[in-house]
Amino acid sequence: MNRAERAQMAMMLEVSAYPKPGNVDRCHDCPDTRLEHFLASTILARPAFDAAERTGGRVGSLIRKAVQLTNGHSGGNTHFGAFILLIPLVLGGDTEGARKVVAATDVEDAVEFYAAFGLTSVRMGESEDLDVNDPASVAAIRERGMTLADIMAYSAPRDMVAREWTNGFALTRRCADLLHAHGCGREAIVAAFLDLLASEPDTFIAKKHGMETAERTMRCAAEVLNGARDLRDFDAECVSAGINPGSIADITIAGIYVALGEGWQWDC
Amino acid sequence: MNRAERAQMAMMLEVSAYPKPGNVDRCHDCPDTRLEHFLASTILARPAFDAAERTGGRVGSLIRKAVQLTNGHSGGNTHFGAFILLIPLVLGGDTEGARKVVAATDVEDAVEFYAAFGLTSVRMGESEDLDVNDPASVAAIRERGMTLADIMAYSAPRDMVAREWTNGFALTRRCADLLHAHGCGREAIVAAFLDLLASEPDTFIAKKHGMETAERTMRCAAEVLNGARDLRDFDAECVSAGINPGSIADITIAGIYVALGEGWQWDC
Repeated sequence: MNRAERAQMAMMLEVSAYPKPGNVDRCHDCPDTRLEHFLASTILARPAFDAAERTGGRVGSLIRKAVQLTNGHSGGNTHFGAFILLIPLVLGGDTEGARKVVAATDVEDAVEFYAAFGLTSVRMGESEDLDVNDPASVAAIRERGMTLADIMAYSAPRDMVAREWTNGFALTRRCADLLHAHGCGREAIVAAFLDLLASEPDTFIAKKHGMETAERTMRCAAEVLNGARDLRDFDAECVSAGINPGSIADITIAGIYVALGEGWQWDC
Repeated sequence: MNRAERAQMAMMLEVSAYPKPGNVDRCHDCPDTRLEHFLASTILARPAFDAAERTGGRVGSLIRKAVQLTNGHSGGNTHFGAFILLIPLVLGGDTEGARKVVAATDVEDAVEFYAAFGLTSVRMGESEDLDVNDPASVAAIRERGMTLADIMAYSAPRDMVAREWTNGFALTRRCADLLHAHGCGREAIVAAFLDLLASEPDTFIAKKHGMETAERTMRCAAEVLNGARDLRDFDAECVSAGINPGSIADITIAGIYVALGEGWQWDC
């Protein structure tokens, strides 16, 4: 399995695993986004991963390419966060290589990333002045000489996916370690996902519902792990409240990609 | 969406649609074959479809390539029948083009196809003397000058996928028409699948359980359509009896491929 295929397999395995509280999974659609949307994006992203693996290329334009390829369906942005992690991982091979990709980003990567961002409906935090719909933001990026790594550092306090770029892909690495520890296949993915959810407030939840809700979700996941709460009940509660841990799903995809490269078995 | 992507989308949409009586679908795994196996084959078959679209090539060796690419997991042969239909469709573009591909097959295509067959655990009918595990079969093919179209004609009375090669992809065409008639998305796929199941005995069921069981399954599907039988009950009955209409699933994949090329909408 080459790197591009590993990235696609990681996207497919993450969305197929269940039950994953609150998220689209094999047994649950969101009102506007269905399983098929996630799997269509998995198929259609291939040329961006192929380009990253075969020809190298710039991380900013490759993220933009992945978003463009997967933007054609009605399910909205299914994998923007996942691409932010997978593109440097495919370019660099593993977390070590991805760190070097991050360190080498420049202002053009930042400008391309902003163009990609503008294609999505991902919300920025209210405090952020670099509005992707504001042409002045691109001018500001150029004026300040901000690289894409600088942009991620700017977003890191409010966005755990961006934070991966600043901390050497620490949660991605932890997710891969959890997968190895939990054994093979679907059950290990669900277990690793829950471990992350029980230990980190999901910043996608925080942006949508506030940090208090993200922290409450984290405590509920911990209660599932210690047996005080039923997993399927927790899933149903998240779904009815519209709480979906999308950032931890993105990190889980990146963790599966890394683990597959280290011999972790999806098929058991 | 190019042809290769359409082929992959068709494979993904077919297995994601539910409930499809007896088959692996979004909500049901078979003991040895799970949703992830079907989706992994969907991802990993891409280079065979790309080669068919971009470079043309021989239909026999491309079917062999698709089987080789998707043979690495424990889920067994998930899409052999689908590849027999999709490879000529991707090579030729549509059913008209696929007919020309079939008409142009030669002895080397037949030999390559036998090599592909040998990689799978697909069973042949008892009456068949061209045993894929018997080297004498390849010698016999060469001696008789049988093309791959001849091989398919030989299997057609017992195999509805092979029969598509002999009748100009008639059921594939009918499935595409049914999809157009039923509207868009997942529900149309389930409806078209049931229409086919209610009108044709599935030869995969016939090989495994006998023609009587295939015909009884057909009558049960017709009862679902006229309201005399509940779809989910029928699904449960098929699952518990190990009855899976695998050949009609293959034809449904081919029908989705054709319909997508004619503007049918999977996303609604």
